[in-house]
Amino acid sequence: MSEKPSEGVIYVGSKPTSSYVLAIVTQLSQGSKRVIVKARGRSITRAVDAVELTKRFTSGKVEVKDIKIGSDKVGEPGKERTVSTIEIVLEARE
Amino acid sequence: MSEKPSEGVIYVGSKPTSSYVLAIVTQLSQGSKRVIVKARGRSITRAVDAVELTKRFTSGKVEVKDIKIGSDKVGEPGKERTVSTIEIVLEARE
Repeated sequence: MSEKPSEGVIYVGSKPTSSYVLAIVTQLSQGSKRVIVKARGRSITRAVDAVELTKRFTSGKVEVKDIKIGSDKVGEPGKERTVSTIEIVLEARE
Repeated sequence: MSEKPSEGVIYVGSKPTSSYVLAIVTQLSQGSKRVIVKARGRSITRAVDAVELTKRFTSGKVEVKDIKIGSDKVGEPGKERTVSTIEIVLEARE
């Protein structure tokens, strides 16, 4: 009864950018039509790098459909701080 | 014969984020309806931070209308490298 995921989320952290490129490409090659790349704080640049590398690596077969930015509160209560977030929606071209 | 600029571009570099928030708010308060915030490489996170701070600072009177990412070649010929870029289009709500 399980169906193949048609949407995957990749959280970009502090690993090398190539790890995330591989994760995105793997998701898309396993049948996901749509992958959402999410990052917070300093990893935002790495998320953009990963998406740009993926676009080049797949020769334009992956398309940026939407980009959203926002803010999240992180940290213990009383020590909260606000970090910026990004969400990049990628879709595989048919 | 000169007309007021209706669109301004802010390049985010390595200054403190607050400098760019001030630049954005100043542009908007001087009659620009639209401000484009651009950054490359590591400054991408700072650009997102500046926009998020501006949104909070102006209590939602500034709206993100569009976000684009891309790549630029930088450096001397023969030593070129590719950096990621971001462009965030902001508009003042009436």
